Amino acid sequence: MAILFFSEVDDPDEWRQAFAAQCPDMSFRVWPDIGDPADIEVALVWHPPDNALDQFPNLRLIASLGAGVDHLFRGTGLPVGIPVSRIVDRSLTEQMVEYVVLGTLFCHRQMPAYMVQQKQANWQLLRQPLGRDRRVGVLGLGELGMASARALKALQFDVAGWSRSPKNDAEIPDYVGTEGLKDFLARTDILVCLLPLTPQTEGLLNAAQFARLPHGASFVNAGRGGHVVEGDLLAALDSGQLNHAMLDVFQAEPLPAESPFWSHPGVTLTPHVASITNASSGTALVLENLQRVRAGDAPLYEVVPSEGY
Amino acid sequence: MAILFFSEVDDPDEWRQAFAAQCPDMSFRVWPDIGDPADIEVALVWHPPDNALDQFPNLRLIASLGAGVDHLFRGTGLPVGIPVSRIVDRSLTEQMVEYVVLGTLFCHRQMPAYMVQQKQANWQLLRQPLGRDRRVGVLGLGELGMASARALKALQFDVAGWSRSPKNDAEIPDYVGTEGLKDFLARTDILVCLLPLTPQTEGLLNAAQFARLPHGASFVNAGRGGHVVEGDLLAALDSGQLNHAMLDVFQAEPLPAESPFWSHPGVTLTPHVASITNASSGTALVLENLQRVRAGDAPLYEVVPSEGY
Repeated sequence: MAILFFSEVDDPDEWRQAFAAQCPDMSFRVWPDIGDPADIEVALVWHPPDNALDQFPNLRLIASLGAGVDHLFRGTGLPVGIPVSRIVDRSLTEQMVEYVVLGTLFCHRQMPAYMVQQKQANWQLLRQPLGRDRRVGVLGLGELGMASARALKALQFDVAGWSRSPKNDAEIPDYVGTEGLKDFLARTDILVCLLPLTPQTEGLLNAAQFARLPHGASFVNAGRGGHVVEGDLLAALDSGQLNHAMLDVFQAEPLPAESPFWSHPGVTLTPHVASITNASSGTALVLENLQRVRAGDAPLYEVVPSEGY
Repeated sequence: MAILFFSEVDDPDEWRQAFAAQCPDMSFRVWPDIGDPADIEVALVWHPPDNALDQFPNLRLIASLGAGVDHLFRGTGLPVGIPVSRIVDRSLTEQMVEYVVLGTLFCHRQMPAYMVQQKQANWQLLRQPLGRDRRVGVLGLGELGMASARALKALQFDVAGWSRSPKNDAEIPDYVGTEGLKDFLARTDILVCLLPLTPQTEGLLNAAQFARLPHGASFVNAGRGGHVVEGDLLAALDSGQLNHAMLDVFQAEPLPAESPFWSHPGVTLTPHVASITNASSGTALVLENLQRVRAGDAPLYEVVPSEGY
């Protein structure tokens, strides 16, 4: 039995070591050194080449190397009938909560303005609303979105969420669907994007949606670059409709050197580091899912390809 | 009956309005327009002039305009036998928790380094420990310190505290006294100062204490500038013993234009804004304390002058 690894962004050695420690009998093969294709039971992948997974007659499981799976559906599709799973992991959630809380507090407490004042040696207090008077809106109330919303609520922010299906959560009110989005944006001072990237959410955040936010709102994107019409985001920052954006994800990654985001005064950016899959806990989940599919059960955190998440 | 207000940093109008709304019968007098000294029952003050409070024969309560009271004990002392209270308020605590969480996450998630990379248009992932592997140490486990420690713990940080007397908290282990400080610093990757400023804590954070921290530790000061030997802090930043400092308080405030903190690459600073007393809730507390002292009871959050907090 063997596992096939493909990623242009993850370090194969870290994963090789994790599999060697947790399942020494498994052969760990890094694309393109696939060995005998009949050995491959699991493909652990990030944005695999088109049709790359069609040549494995005994493939049982396609495991995404992260919580997002949009990278699997960008090309010509996956072999039909093979279950697809994503990684949901405590450490992945914890890292994302950290990033979202950091981005939200960074905007809420006006750090961009204070950092400009620091450069000018200017000691000046800015009017500061309390957290309970700051309305934070989380787009996407999945694992990561709900955990982030709860952490923000614990800090006393006035938090709501937006999702495709109603969550009926006791703590986090949610807005649903296209009609709900309008009201959700109108009440959101700090917008956090944690949506999955699907044909329905691609390009969702455009000029029309940014215009629905209160003037001077902030934006934290830890979802995907594909959610945002980047020219519209820049225009909203230039006009002051958006005060600040903290961005971890972009249409093109690595962000090209000529991108205006690098030097825009309204942008603080990080290189897609909000939440990095931990090889050790990720390996444990992949191994558990392999047991499950061998026994004829569905894997944990199975992805529905027709829905794209 | 009348209240006397003195502060060079707080806005008297905000407080005047709050008292007018909550107790319209009370005369609100802003120093030096004190009117008849015999009317003054309460002095609501921040760093009052020496002996300023000696002239009021019917003074019943000296109320600090904030959680800290060191400003009351800097000069020639206060009239003897008048109870002294400080403001402890939900919104004061909430703001401080926000600031401490922001400062801790800012250092933990390596934002200073990512912001340098952004200036260079450099897309590079940095090795990132998980929160549960990052040891945060909170100096001072009073109202603000304990609330901050709990919020950091909820984000999965490995949190401990240091205090003068043992807290025996189920969640937050604490180190006590001079011996405890040594061990506390040795296990602290991110040091948060929320101590009261007293003769015992003044200048506590000097070269010897910074040297006890692991190399490359970070420092968040939301206590008082007087806790820090500022030259030693700069030296620790210059040598790399400290990686970054987020500073809200300084020996001299406003921070003089010539201070090296403004332009030090290892410093992010804010102009003493971590937690600003809310006039409305502060007024409610002062009025409640006035009722209590009129009835012969001790005020809430009474300060022990001999201990300085």
